[in-house]
Amino acid sequence: MNTHTTPLTDAQQLDRADPLGLCRDWFDLPQGLVYLDGNSLGALPRCTAQRVAHTVQHEWGQNLIKSWNAAGWFDAPQRIGDLIAPLIGARAGEVVACDSTSVNLYKVLHAALMQQKAGSQKRVVLSERSNFPTDLYMAQSLCAQHGFELKLVSWPELPRAIDQSVAVLMLTHVHYRSGRMHDMAALTQAAHAAGALAIWDLAHSAGAVPVDLHGAHADYAVGCGYKYFNGGPGAPAFVWVNPKHANSFSQPLSGWWGHAQPFAFTPDYKPASGVGQYLCGTQPIVSSVALQAGLELFAQLAGGMQALREKSLALTDLFMQLVDEQTQGAWQLVTPREHTLRGSHVSYTCAEGGYAFVQALIARGVIGDFRAGDESAPFEEDRLPILRFGFAPLYNSYCDVWQAAQHIGEVLRTGEWRCAKYQVQSAVT
Amino acid sequence: MNTHTTPLTDAQQLDRADPLGLCRDWFDLPQGLVYLDGNSLGALPRCTAQRVAHTVQHEWGQNLIKSWNAAGWFDAPQRIGDLIAPLIGARAGEVVACDSTSVNLYKVLHAALMQQKAGSQKRVVLSERSNFPTDLYMAQSLCAQHGFELKLVSWPELPRAIDQSVAVLMLTHVHYRSGRMHDMAALTQAAHAAGALAIWDLAHSAGAVPVDLHGAHADYAVGCGYKYFNGGPGAPAFVWVNPKHANSFSQPLSGWWGHAQPFAFTPDYKPASGVGQYLCGTQPIVSSVALQAGLELFAQLAGGMQALREKSLALTDLFMQLVDEQTQGAWQLVTPREHTLRGSHVSYTCAEGGYAFVQALIARGVIGDFRAGDESAPFEEDRLPILRFGFAPLYNSYCDVWQAAQHIGEVLRTGEWRCAKYQVQSAVT
Repeated sequence: MNTHTTPLTDAQQLDRADPLGLCRDWFDLPQGLVYLDGNSLGALPRCTAQRVAHTVQHEWGQNLIKSWNAAGWFDAPQRIGDLIAPLIGARAGEVVACDSTSVNLYKVLHAALMQQKAGSQKRVVLSERSNFPTDLYMAQSLCAQHGFELKLVSWPELPRAIDQSVAVLMLTHVHYRSGRMHDMAALTQAAHAAGALAIWDLAHSAGAVPVDLHGAHADYAVGCGYKYFNGGPGAPAFVWVNPKHANSFSQPLSGWWGHAQPFAFTPDYKPASGVGQYLCGTQPIVSSVALQAGLELFAQLAGGMQALREKSLALTDLFMQLVDEQTQGAWQLVTPREHTLRGSHVSYTCAEGGYAFVQALIARGVIGDFRAGDESAPFEEDRLPILRFGFAPLYNSYCDVWQAAQHIGEVLRTGEWRCAKYQVQSAVT
Repeated sequence: MNTHTTPLTDAQQLDRADPLGLCRDWFDLPQGLVYLDGNSLGALPRCTAQRVAHTVQHEWGQNLIKSWNAAGWFDAPQRIGDLIAPLIGARAGEVVACDSTSVNLYKVLHAALMQQKAGSQKRVVLSERSNFPTDLYMAQSLCAQHGFELKLVSWPELPRAIDQSVAVLMLTHVHYRSGRMHDMAALTQAAHAAGALAIWDLAHSAGAVPVDLHGAHADYAVGCGYKYFNGGPGAPAFVWVNPKHANSFSQPLSGWWGHAQPFAFTPDYKPASGVGQYLCGTQPIVSSVALQAGLELFAQLAGGMQALREKSLALTDLFMQLVDEQTQGAWQLVTPREHTLRGSHVSYTCAEGGYAFVQALIARGVIGDFRAGDESAPFEEDRLPILRFGFAPLYNSYCDVWQAAQHIGEVLRTGEWRCAKYQVQSAVT
């Protein structure tokens, strides 16, 4: 029995008409795999293997130490940052690619707290309880060290919670579970009105939705290199600071790469101007080169982030429609349907078997992932187990969407997710 | 004119008799190059390019997100740490490979300061003024944040400076300029006698000299992956904590990889037990795989670190002898001649033209490096400009030593270092 009402030919027609359809050939995706986990680990661009091999064999192997200058290894964080800048509404020279998102969040949150500390009664760092946990963990550490309080609320409570006690509003732009997207401009404005600074984690939005940090007057931002940027597993993250803070911020991980003159080897730290101060130690060059290769694809893209967003919305709209057809109410959509309220992944919940269902789909070659609920959370949405499907408009096709929905329907109808083998849990965001 | 008194045939004979001579074939060194900068960036092992390509093309490209488990990406920091442990006198499970040396130093220094803070009047972090600057910069930041004072002395003053005011003794085991090696056991003992904790930066000793962290009763250690470990440019660093501190330390970069259950996604940070707590964010896997490939060579080595040390001393003894012959007093040795007092690089100073001299040698295919002096340092040794030659016993040969000394003599006699083209400065440690 097949309850599908939308035929595959419709999806094929959409793929033929897709102005970004040829971009899929930029990627080395396994034949037959429907990969809907690019929000966790982006796919391998075809150009990357060759770029990495060149760096390893030629730049490192043959030119050795000379490559710090000759191959531009030194400038990699800034050069990669300049590729990221236009994708997030920042300008050249304002972004550096380095370290991990967690470490970068530590730098910017510390910087923001120190700005606020100067003579104010603002002692609260405000975030969502269901924010990606590492952000909360880093905030807990900094709050404990510097006498602040981490206040966690659910998203509907945010507007009211932004009061005069708040020193820093720290949010992830697109929620890693629900796919819900905050109104960055409105929340930043509310934060500023309350005298707070706004830090945005772009892990699930950079490269997926147009971000306008300057337009939103954001203060600080961090984000991830290995999701929609396709930089490879554990690729360096990035950090941005609004230039208006250039003379007032300082970050605590004051390593030599952030020094104004690292090769003067002076015993006293003198920070570089601007975002260069966010560098700390030597960066992993091989992983950085892979990230650069991934980002250069965005620079080649006709239509830029706006074109990607249009396709992302079309893919996810179709997915929602087809999953509705296939699941007939057995799955409930967690992600908002409204375009302005969501990023590029779609999340469902179901009464039972969410984890096993994702495993059954993986066995069929449809790769999504599962996130358990936070059972002790006061807000219902946070307690829901989540089946999560990410759509990377650079390489996902309308046929991917159709195939995924088809398999979801089949797994539901066959009940194969009940099979005992679909257990043993592990996952990465 | 050739004042050389030791013939090339002597070096050739030493190479033929070298039990580690075949190890050079493990590396892809450019033909004819005399590479004496492995203390800055280690050479490329032949196996590494293939390992990296496999990770990029197969693990990432084909298996995608599954590789976090299937290819052991998650466990990479611990697995690589276990390869490092026997080289530094640590035990399996006590070392993780992650982040940069600077970031790791921040973690351990913070941990040590927090241990000391509990009710003590110890407010001093003691180090060398000429310690590698990033270590001092990180210490400055932590001292300023937590009310400690960074006290910097020269090495002869260290024993007397280790008094009851000292909370933490923070030293680099082998000095990046002079090549001088501290007596880790004696200084750690002195620190403990004064109630201080001892942190050792092994950047210029790990993989170069046998290190015995447990034998020295050290408290914390960090080190570098891209020097003698041949892990590639910016390879992850490592961190070790003495298990006796396992229940008393905490580090501030409390990211999700250091959580006891990272995939429970709970909002509260609960640190993993032991050194696992030193992990923070997602690690750069491609760079990590290169580091693992470099370290696996050490595991194959008959005789281990002791065999490497014997060759390192033989290479550097010969170098000192031949440079004496060639320079006839025009260069002064900065590195101590005594074996127990030095690591695996040899440093000279000369009255003029040190930087240009190194450039002239590089033009001849002899790669060493130059470090300017700290002109305002009170201790004379710290003010000296340094010509630095690193000997990596895994791949440097006695013929390398002979060729290097020969070129040094020729550059001195021809005066070609005076040529204007040997200017424009840049360098990496």
